[in-house]
Amino acid sequence: MKPYHAMSKEELAEEVRSLEKAYEKTQSSGLSLDLTRGKPGQDQIELSAALDGILNNNFTLQDGTDARNYGGISGIPEARKLGAEVLDALPEEVIVGGNSSLTMMYQYVEAAHFFGLFETGESWSAEAARSGGRVKFLCPVPGYDRHFTICEALGMEMIPVPMDSEGPNIEFVREAVKADSLIKGIWCVPRHSNPSGVCYSDRTVTALSRLAADAGANFRILWDNAYSVHDLYEGCPEIAPLLKLATQAGHADSVVMFASTSKITFAGGGISWMASSVGNIERYLKRHSTMAIGPDKVNQLRHVRFLPDLDAMKAHMRAHAERLRPKFEAIQQRLEDDLGPLELAEWTRPTGGYFISFDTLPGLATQVVELTAQAGVKLTAAGSTWPHRKDPEDRNIRLAPSFPAPNEVKEAIAVFTLCVRLASARQLLGANTP
Amino acid sequence: MKPYHAMSKEELAEEVRSLEKAYEKTQSSGLSLDLTRGKPGQDQIELSAALDGILNNNFTLQDGTDARNYGGISGIPEARKLGAEVLDALPEEVIVGGNSSLTMMYQYVEAAHFFGLFETGESWSAEAARSGGRVKFLCPVPGYDRHFTICEALGMEMIPVPMDSEGPNIEFVREAVKADSLIKGIWCVPRHSNPSGVCYSDRTVTALSRLAADAGANFRILWDNAYSVHDLYEGCPEIAPLLKLATQAGHADSVVMFASTSKITFAGGGISWMASSVGNIERYLKRHSTMAIGPDKVNQLRHVRFLPDLDAMKAHMRAHAERLRPKFEAIQQRLEDDLGPLELAEWTRPTGGYFISFDTLPGLATQVVELTAQAGVKLTAAGSTWPHRKDPEDRNIRLAPSFPAPNEVKEAIAVFTLCVRLASARQLLGANTP
Repeated sequence: MKPYHAMSKEELAEEVRSLEKAYEKTQSSGLSLDLTRGKPGQDQIELSAALDGILNNNFTLQDGTDARNYGGISGIPEARKLGAEVLDALPEEVIVGGNSSLTMMYQYVEAAHFFGLFETGESWSAEAARSGGRVKFLCPVPGYDRHFTICEALGMEMIPVPMDSEGPNIEFVREAVKADSLIKGIWCVPRHSNPSGVCYSDRTVTALSRLAADAGANFRILWDNAYSVHDLYEGCPEIAPLLKLATQAGHADSVVMFASTSKITFAGGGISWMASSVGNIERYLKRHSTMAIGPDKVNQLRHVRFLPDLDAMKAHMRAHAERLRPKFEAIQQRLEDDLGPLELAEWTRPTGGYFISFDTLPGLATQVVELTAQAGVKLTAAGSTWPHRKDPEDRNIRLAPSFPAPNEVKEAIAVFTLCVRLASARQLLGANTP
Repeated sequence: MKPYHAMSKEELAEEVRSLEKAYEKTQSSGLSLDLTRGKPGQDQIELSAALDGILNNNFTLQDGTDARNYGGISGIPEARKLGAEVLDALPEEVIVGGNSSLTMMYQYVEAAHFFGLFETGESWSAEAARSGGRVKFLCPVPGYDRHFTICEALGMEMIPVPMDSEGPNIEFVREAVKADSLIKGIWCVPRHSNPSGVCYSDRTVTALSRLAADAGANFRILWDNAYSVHDLYEGCPEIAPLLKLATQAGHADSVVMFASTSKITFAGGGISWMASSVGNIERYLKRHSTMAIGPDKVNQLRHVRFLPDLDAMKAHMRAHAERLRPKFEAIQQRLEDDLGPLELAEWTRPTGGYFISFDTLPGLATQVVELTAQAGVKLTAAGSTWPHRKDPEDRNIRLAPSFPAPNEVKEAIAVFTLCVRLASARQLLGANTP
């Protein structure tokens, strides 16, 4: 195989013919596979089956109260302590929620937007209205679609931020917040970032911890540590402790961190955490108490009995890695084998998390996703990793290998590489109408 | 004992002296009791201890999917069916949430307020801004403080509605919505109402089902059926099926119903339901999907395995009633014995629910609550049953006997009647400075 760009027109035409034949054959084989979302596999979920029933009729918390009754809007102390380990914070800086950290993120951002959760009193939307502008958020791209959806739902303007190997390009970020005081936040997935797999460097985290000094009032770093312990390999780098660094720098209020056990225990039945300065937490809880009496403490208790500390959690995550790693490696192998020599795509080689970020030649992502769909393999919609689902270069595709069985992952990725080749060859041939 | 109003000044003065002596004695006995909130008792919560572990390693839903993974924002089909029985609706009109119907109520009302969940597109707040007014809600009083808190948090104006023996005074309600199209909703607790215990009559429910005909655009009845199966006695009246009646009348969109298992299984670890027209549910879920991937389906599955249908639920509730009834009856007996002949207070005799609504002589509720607190018995703050916590006559006190042990309930209510007598005698004597 030689790179497509080095092929003659005749060679390319022959390649297209051969790929089209292979594609037709694939289409007729009636596949139905799904690489769309970062859902844990069935074998991963089984790892936590003992959660149900683990309480063994003992519902008593360490403080002597019964987890089953009302109350305790901060979450149970045991689970705050565990969250403090996960998020590298103090227990008093941590609260514990229900089965979705996404819901906590939405509730934080929405309350900050409409009501203000700040010492100054003024909400983001009120400040924007006063200065005749819109609230803006920095959105590192490629990024997590549901972060962008929150901003979109609240009518915020999203500013894409380029990602580099150390995280969001920090010079870009600093200049942006300096230039516009209505930029009120930035979304970050600091470890095994969704979808690029990047782990933020110490330099990036340190710079972020001081970012509030350059930003307008009430700037917030939304730190979605969704993959804090989700390593595929031993020896992945730790992330610098953002809240601690920000506290040292006098900017503790600018940090709001999140995590959950969705990809540790049960994807739909886990617990979630938020961590920030004690003042921020108090202001959030005051608002939150208008809509909630308390989280499901019984499920929080199940979780701390099942995973009493961070060491137990990390051991548990090694069992996850054993199940995920072969899927990721099958994908890498196939991408290398089928596409490596052709020089027509780039992709990430993550050491953890749930995704591989894949870039086609410019202008081909939508077409590749359509081609694979028509051959029975569903992928996340092209553009999903960008604000408003619009990838300006139409290149990025998020691959999510966790849910299908290993043999299905292999089948699906073979279809994918075929479609990438077909779309690329057609484009280079100038024959790009399917 | 004769009625206080029939006593001479000397008799009253003697009564005050005697009561003050008794009060001092009570104060010195070092009580610490709590009748503040409608928390189930420990013996009630034990009734559902089997919930944890009930799945017995079988997490498979009837549709073949695993309850532990992501997805299913409407809730599991089995739980939608159960909710349909509880709320007298169709399964497709019902969605299932997490551990708090209060959170669902907040989320519905907030989304309607800021974003609109209506065919017309315009939100409540946008309509109010356009017409230069404020969004208003009808609040039957005495009512549930957390309903009022939601309105307050959203900056709505609350209009108190008198309750009569059939529910909110329906003539008042009809005239109010006719006169002001910015009245966008009414809070209702239709069965064993909080705190009065009233069960809405068929006449009231039928009138409410047609209320939208008289109201402005996008009017909503927030139907918090928190005590739908919470009877203390056999033979309590059923409530007419509001959503069905409204559907027949062509006003299905005007009804949004809620219920939860908070006072059926675990107060903090139950599941919740919302029911409305299919169109309303679709619009709500579209908005809700910006903040949630799905509810905790594992806990939903636990619940339907534990309580597979309404009959099972009703049988379970009879065991609750056996534990609650003695507490309610102890209070009634003591109120009758201590206060009946004195003609200085009124109170309800509920057949279900969690509360007794108590009215002192005008102007005494705050003082009675303070007196009981100083004698070691905490009551819900006076005024809590009114919008903005301001009872214009300062009369209403909500008694919540469910949580303390039976002997504690007896001790607490004895302190309460003593304080009511003391405050009343002092007032009638014109010596009302404690």
